[in-house]
Amino acid sequence: MAKAEAKPSPFAPARLPDMPAVPGVRFAACQAGIRYAGRTDLMMAVLDQGTAVAGVLTRSKTCSAPVLWCREGLQRGRARALVVNSGNANAFTGKKGKQATRITAEAAAKAVGCSAGEVFIASTGVIGEALDAAKFAHLLDGLAASVKPDAFEIATRAIMTTDTYPKLATRKAEIDGVPVAINGFCKGAGMIAPDMATMLCFIFTDAAIEPTAMQSLLSKHVQTTFNCMTIDGDTSTSDTCLLFATGAAAKRGQKPVADPEDRRLEAFGDALQDLMRDLAIQVAKDGEGLSKFVTFEIGGAESWEAARRIALSCANSPLLKSAIFGEDPNWGRVVMAIGKAGEAADRDKLSIWFGPHIVAHNGERAAEYVEQTVAAYMKGREIIVRADVGVGSASATVWTCDLTHDYISINADYRS
Amino acid sequence: MAKAEAKPSPFAPARLPDMPAVPGVRFAACQAGIRYAGRTDLMMAVLDQGTAVAGVLTRSKTCSAPVLWCREGLQRGRARALVVNSGNANAFTGKKGKQATRITAEAAAKAVGCSAGEVFIASTGVIGEALDAAKFAHLLDGLAASVKPDAFEIATRAIMTTDTYPKLATRKAEIDGVPVAINGFCKGAGMIAPDMATMLCFIFTDAAIEPTAMQSLLSKHVQTTFNCMTIDGDTSTSDTCLLFATGAAAKRGQKPVADPEDRRLEAFGDALQDLMRDLAIQVAKDGEGLSKFVTFEIGGAESWEAARRIALSCANSPLLKSAIFGEDPNWGRVVMAIGKAGEAADRDKLSIWFGPHIVAHNGERAAEYVEQTVAAYMKGREIIVRADVGVGSASATVWTCDLTHDYISINADYRS
Repeated sequence: MAKAEAKPSPFAPARLPDMPAVPGVRFAACQAGIRYAGRTDLMMAVLDQGTAVAGVLTRSKTCSAPVLWCREGLQRGRARALVVNSGNANAFTGKKGKQATRITAEAAAKAVGCSAGEVFIASTGVIGEALDAAKFAHLLDGLAASVKPDAFEIATRAIMTTDTYPKLATRKAEIDGVPVAINGFCKGAGMIAPDMATMLCFIFTDAAIEPTAMQSLLSKHVQTTFNCMTIDGDTSTSDTCLLFATGAAAKRGQKPVADPEDRRLEAFGDALQDLMRDLAIQVAKDGEGLSKFVTFEIGGAESWEAARRIALSCANSPLLKSAIFGEDPNWGRVVMAIGKAGEAADRDKLSIWFGPHIVAHNGERAAEYVEQTVAAYMKGREIIVRADVGVGSASATVWTCDLTHDYISINADYRS
Repeated sequence: MAKAEAKPSPFAPARLPDMPAVPGVRFAACQAGIRYAGRTDLMMAVLDQGTAVAGVLTRSKTCSAPVLWCREGLQRGRARALVVNSGNANAFTGKKGKQATRITAEAAAKAVGCSAGEVFIASTGVIGEALDAAKFAHLLDGLAASVKPDAFEIATRAIMTTDTYPKLATRKAEIDGVPVAINGFCKGAGMIAPDMATMLCFIFTDAAIEPTAMQSLLSKHVQTTFNCMTIDGDTSTSDTCLLFATGAAAKRGQKPVADPEDRRLEAFGDALQDLMRDLAIQVAKDGEGLSKFVTFEIGGAESWEAARRIALSCANSPLLKSAIFGEDPNWGRVVMAIGKAGEAADRDKLSIWFGPHIVAHNGERAAEYVEQTVAAYMKGREIIVRADVGVGSASATVWTCDLTHDYISINADYRS
C-alpha cells in the first residue's frame, strides 16, 4: 500500500532549522514497512547512561498501549532508549498491543544494553489494527549500531503521518554559566486537541536536571504551549510528550539541578517554553488540509483557564473555522463561540478585532467597521482574532487553522 | 439580496404531516424583506386569553435580545402572541437589539389587544447586524387580522434559514378522557448543539395545564430529545423552545392540571416527548450539507449523563463525521471519541457495532469482523453506531449527521 501524498501546507518552511547535536543522544531510522512501503517508519534514539526523563501523556480513557508503557517508565524517571513507529498507533489493540510494546522494549533493551523499563515507546497511525512487533523488533539491533548525533531530521521524518513537513526546533540556554542545548521535534497533523499532553513530541537536552524538576517544568509549559493548540478538537489516544536530559553538560561543569524552583533553571525554563511554543505553532501550521493559520487572543477574562477555554471554543468551532476558510470576517460566529464556552463573558462589553481592525465594541458592531477593509485582511494567510470579554483582566492565546474541503477529503478516506 | 438555494436534504419528507388545528391558536406569515427579498420571514401566532407558556432557552453567555425578552415573560407564564422573524437573529446588537424587541412586542400587543409582556419573540439568522423593527412592526396589525388555525406550514416556512424542509409534528393525548392535540414545529440547520434548549421550537396544545407543570414537563423532555441532538457542536445564541397551552380543552371538560406529578399528565408527557424526539430527529436529518443521518447509542456507561456526554463526543468529532461521510467504518475514531469524552470507559471491555455488525469486542477488533460487510453497511443513508463502554448499565442515544464538503461550502459563504 502506498501512502497518499497530501498537498503541502502553505506554511511548510523553505528551510529546516539547523539542529546541533545534543551530547548524550543519537538517532537512527529505517523503513520497516509497518503500514506503507517505501517510507521510513521506525526510529530509535539511544541515550547515555544517567539520562533523566519526564513526560506528559494523553488523558484519553482509551489511551494506547505505548502510553500505558511510558506511564510506568516515567515513575522511575530514567531512560536509555526511545523507539517510535508510525503507520500504526497500537491503540485499541488489547492484550496483543501490550505484548507488542513489551516485545519492542525488550528488543531495544537488548540492542542497547539496558533494562526494558528504560526504553520509552510511542506509536502513531491507524487505531484499532494489531501492531505486529515481530515485523520490526529484529531491526532494532541494526538501528542501535548505526545511531548518529546529527540525525534529528531523519528521526522526525520517521514519525510523520499526515504531516506535510517535519517539525523541528532548537534553543540554547545556560545553567551555571554552562551552555546547554534543547532540541525538540514533533508530529501532527489531525486528531489534535491536546488535553494534558499532545500528539508525539520529543525534546532532548544535555542539561543535568533530575526527573522531578524536569517533570515540573514540562507540565507547567505544556499548559501554555501544546495545550493551547488545536486542529480539530479530537484528542488523540496516543498523545505523548517526553523530555530527556542526558546530563552530558555535567562533564562541562554544570551542577545537577534537583529543585524545580531552583533559580538556575529560569533561563532554561524560558528556552524550553519558547521551543515548545515554536513546535506547537508548527503543528497548527500543518493542520490537515488547512489554508490559513489562525490565532485567537482572548482577553478580559476571569482567569487564564477561562480565557483558554473561550479561545478553544472559538478554535474548535466548525462554523467559525469554515467562515475563516471562506475569508468571511464573521464576528457573529465569534460571539456565538464565546457565548457557548460556558465561561463568564459580558455580552454588552464584548469587543472583537480581526487583526488590527476593530469590528465590534461594547456588544455591537463598531462604528469604525468597514466591511471592505476587514474583508481584505481576511484574504491573508495568517489571521489573528482578538476579543475582550469584558469581565476581568486575564488572557490566553490559542493557535489553530481553518476548516477546509481538504480536511474533509483527507479524513473521508484515510483508513481504507 | 436573494437567498442561495441549498441542495435539499436526502431526508426531505415526500409529504408533510397533516397538522390539525389546535383550538385557541391561529397563525399568519408574510414577506417583510428583513434580509432576503421574495420569501416569508415574519410570522405571528395569536393565542386565546388564558394561554399558559413554558420555555427553555439557550445558556449562551452571549444570548440574543429575544432570548432575554422571553426569559422575563416566562416568569409570568402567560402568553397571547408569538412573533418570530428569520433573516436576522437580533443577537449581539446591544441597546438597539433590546429596543427592537420592545418595539416588536408593543406593536404586537396593540394588534392583539394584550400587554407587551404577553408577547413572546424569537429571531433567527445573521448575528451581529442590527435588526430594524420599524421595517416590519407596522405589518403586525395586518398579520393579527389574518391569522388562521390551519396555517402551521406557513408559519414554519417563515422561520426557516438554511433548512431545506419545514419540520412539523403532531400528536394526540387524553387528559381526563378529553382528547387534546399537541402540534410543534422547529427549525435547524446549523449552529445546532443544544445545551439546555435548542434552535427555535414552538409547541402548541389545547390542554389546560398550569405554567409550572408545563415547565417541568418541557425541561424534563428537552434532555432526552433536543439536548441529545447535534449538528456541529456550535450552540446558538438564540436557542428557544416554547410550549404554549391554550387551555381550550377545558371547555370540553378537561380539568386544569397544576401539579407536574399529576398522573393525569402521564399520557400527555409521553406524547410530548415523542413529538419533541420527532422534531429533534427532523432537525438532525436536515443538518447543513449532510449526506447521512447518524445515531450514536452508547451503553454500559456509569450514568445517563455520562452516556450522553460520550455519545455527544462521538457526534461532534469532525474526524469521525468525516469518516462516516467517506463511508469508512473507522472504529478507531469511535475509540478516540469515547476516550476523549472524559467519562469512565474501560478500554479493554469496549465493544462497538456499526448497525448489526460487531466490529470490536473486549478492546480489540472482533473476530467476526468482515471489512466488506461493514463497508457495504456504511453505504446506507442511515448509520447506527453502538458502543458498550463496559463500566455500568446506563445508556443514551444522540442523533447527528455526517460532516461533508457541502457543510464547508454552506458555511464558507453564508454571511457575505
